[in-house]
Amino acid sequence: MSQKPSQVLGGKVEVGETQEGISKRPMIDFHEIDEGLVEKMVYDALVWSSLHGLVVGDKSVQRSGKVPGVGMVHAPFALFPMPFPESHWKQAYELSPIFNELVDRVSLDAKFLQDSLSRTKKVDAFTSRLLDIHSKMLEINKKEDIRLGLHRSDYMLDEETKQLLQIEMNTISSSFPGLGCLVSDLHRSLLNHYGEYLGLDSRRVPNNPAATQFVEALAKAWTEYNNPRSVILFVVQPEERNMGGQEVAIVYFRAGYTPIDYPSESEWRARFLMEQSSAIKCPSISYHLVGTKKIQQELAKPNVLERFLNDKEDIAKLRKCFAGLWSLDDSDIVRKAIEIPGLFVMKPQREGGGNNIYGDDVREALVRLQKEGSEADAAYILMQRIFPTVSHTFLMREGICYKDDTISELGVYGAYLRNKDKVILNDQCGYLMRTKVSSSDEGGVAAGFAVLDSLYLT
Amino acid sequence: MSQKPSQVLGGKVEVGETQEGISKRPMIDFHEIDEGLVEKMVYDALVWSSLHGLVVGDKSVQRSGKVPGVGMVHAPFALFPMPFPESHWKQAYELSPIFNELVDRVSLDAKFLQDSLSRTKKVDAFTSRLLDIHSKMLEINKKEDIRLGLHRSDYMLDEETKQLLQIEMNTISSSFPGLGCLVSDLHRSLLNHYGEYLGLDSRRVPNNPAATQFVEALAKAWTEYNNPRSVILFVVQPEERNMGGQEVAIVYFRAGYTPIDYPSESEWRARFLMEQSSAIKCPSISYHLVGTKKIQQELAKPNVLERFLNDKEDIAKLRKCFAGLWSLDDSDIVRKAIEIPGLFVMKPQREGGGNNIYGDDVREALVRLQKEGSEADAAYILMQRIFPTVSHTFLMREGICYKDDTISELGVYGAYLRNKDKVILNDQCGYLMRTKVSSSDEGGVAAGFAVLDSLYLT
Repeated sequence: MSQKPSQVLGGKVEVGETQEGISKRPMIDFHEIDEGLVEKMVYDALVWSSLHGLVVGDKSVQRSGKVPGVGMVHAPFALFPMPFPESHWKQAYELSPIFNELVDRVSLDAKFLQDSLSRTKKVDAFTSRLLDIHSKMLEINKKEDIRLGLHRSDYMLDEETKQLLQIEMNTISSSFPGLGCLVSDLHRSLLNHYGEYLGLDSRRVPNNPAATQFVEALAKAWTEYNNPRSVILFVVQPEERNMGGQEVAIVYFRAGYTPIDYPSESEWRARFLMEQSSAIKCPSISYHLVGTKKIQQELAKPNVLERFLNDKEDIAKLRKCFAGLWSLDDSDIVRKAIEIPGLFVMKPQREGGGNNIYGDDVREALVRLQKEGSEADAAYILMQRIFPTVSHTFLMREGICYKDDTISELGVYGAYLRNKDKVILNDQCGYLMRTKVSSSDEGGVAAGFAVLDSLYLT
Repeated sequence: MSQKPSQVLGGKVEVGETQEGISKRPMIDFHEIDEGLVEKMVYDALVWSSLHGLVVGDKSVQRSGKVPGVGMVHAPFALFPMPFPESHWKQAYELSPIFNELVDRVSLDAKFLQDSLSRTKKVDAFTSRLLDIHSKMLEINKKEDIRLGLHRSDYMLDEETKQLLQIEMNTISSSFPGLGCLVSDLHRSLLNHYGEYLGLDSRRVPNNPAATQFVEALAKAWTEYNNPRSVILFVVQPEERNMGGQEVAIVYFRAGYTPIDYPSESEWRARFLMEQSSAIKCPSISYHLVGTKKIQQELAKPNVLERFLNDKEDIAKLRKCFAGLWSLDDSDIVRKAIEIPGLFVMKPQREGGGNNIYGDDVREALVRLQKEGSEADAAYILMQRIFPTVSHTFLMREGICYKDDTISELGVYGAYLRNKDKVILNDQCGYLMRTKVSSSDEGGVAAGFAVLDSLYLT
């Protein structure tokens, strides 16, 4: 699992070997690939990134991230698309509109949301604030006729059972629709040039229109709002913006999903005002709450999906992708998790990544919570640990090509728009493939060593 | 003329005022432009740059320029397109095929090249080496049946006479066709959004297909070479590259125009071998020599154009754009230049920019050369100094918006391809507009404070 970086300089690359020698995917035998070919592909891929906007802010440059256009570096990406069974890809796409519908139905059941999150409320201040806003909207009987959801449901492929299992549902600020699309374009471009040497066909990399489709969904929601002089507000920083007296048709939250985005009461007041306004919120407070881990866990309980959906086939499809999910008041499961912690992941309520608990830390955390005997356990859920297929991959970061064992996570974007009883849009919107070094427990391209990837359908 | 930088942070920009308050162009009154509007345009322009590949290597980042995809920053650009008379723009386009033809005709007159450069040869080692290669090709009676020229002729608009005057003709490594095109796209995009507030119409920014047309010309030359298994070799560094046994159809010199590109004899041997080969050279050694300042000056002499062209109208058109050009053995002109140095520029033979002599330095250099009495004066030519129109401009560099007085230089790309008697291509290929702070004497976007720009036809 050791990373052996090899720097690309002046168009030259040396690629280090890993200690484990077996690629578990038969599709591309990475040991057979000519080094000179990899070198050329690395160079072309880096140039392509610069020319097509596959770039991010370089944290090592001071003004990067504050001023656009300065301190840029290519986004981390995989050199090759990741082999993935076409049947599972289709399954994930098929699930997208069902999840969209489920989120909408659950969002309308205020009692279910409040009840399910009642224990969480006591231990998690952030979820508590969201629930407060939710309660106030109930008090004033606030209705959201036009509802817009731009979600992303994330999955992993379990190696042993060969099942596609859901990791989580993102209902706020679903990231990377733009950069994800570009990586598909990059891989198709590389395979158009080098595919014949690799025995790979660029047409097996599915088209990825995520960015366009999300923008189209926003445009459709704006049309539905039906005021040609209104604007779309993007909340990108936790501060109130001068709206220049224009009516806001849609509030799109690219921020607001983590306590850091609310440094003072004024951000909470802003969120409250926005929720109270007639603008379409993406997401509304209800949609936001549906995306919590606790609701994911509640929905996985027996007979809960049946409260929200009628179609038995749809329910079966959803249930098939549910991993084991339990609250910490299930003492049998807690006992089992202390015994074999490697089979579980402990997840906090909140979004943002980087806070999951794995391995022996699961045991330690559970034992500590038991001793404390408080309600602090309500801040977590337990999830079956998924063991995804391990692949040998070339990863590009900061101009350097690494070769390592990796696991991948597939996200499928979904867009949902309805106005009262009329469903205007309910569709899948492309995908996000993220590949990370398998020795790392945490995901997130921005956080650790993970890269943007695309699919090669098998 | 003082630069008052104002940093763009978090989408905010303050734009400093210059001391001189009069914009000499009536088209856009920069003092009337709303600051908030400029702020928005700056932000949008910087984001656009990142997403569309309007980026260059940031010299302050260590590996930048060596490894693609790292250490990128937006290319310096003007926030608004530069007003420019449509008639002069059309004139420059019309001149392009005539200059293409002239370069070809002159390149065939080996005696003219050798005689014109005979004095230069004695004092300029670099030109001397090029002439050596040229001589050897004459000895072996080397013929270039297929000739490809990708040129750029640069002009300035003289404020007093309102004439379009040629600065120089580039026959090797004509730079910026790619980035130049992008700035036109950027400006059209900005005017599509903000044009109505500014009273500007994006359709007045001419389409700029330079990059595409140069690539098409290369493709046509490759087709003419008529070997489907042959490749195009880009000489980008002064080292011999492994060609993998493939036949080379075209050698495109992106390097090789400055002594720095020939650190040892092996680079000269490589250049010689390439010239000797059957590959199409872009440029051939003859085309390269035609691009020297000395040849430009010789062609400006009375009755010289007539040696190469028959069409009297064409000759008149060319002559109309010639600035005054003299060799330093013209004692009357040297005397005048010592007297009024501000009316002249001293230019060395070689390309690369940054070596021109202006103002009082012209007097000093001429007096020194007279005292020395050597032939060193043959390394320079004297050129009429052009006083271009000064415009008030917003310039973007490293995320910062500057407001200053500037002058602009228009380059028009031209492509020429012939096979024996058949002219396959002879056309203009889009343009390059460069705008620089008028207090600076030297051009070159990479060297000083100059930015890429586009045209706004008036």
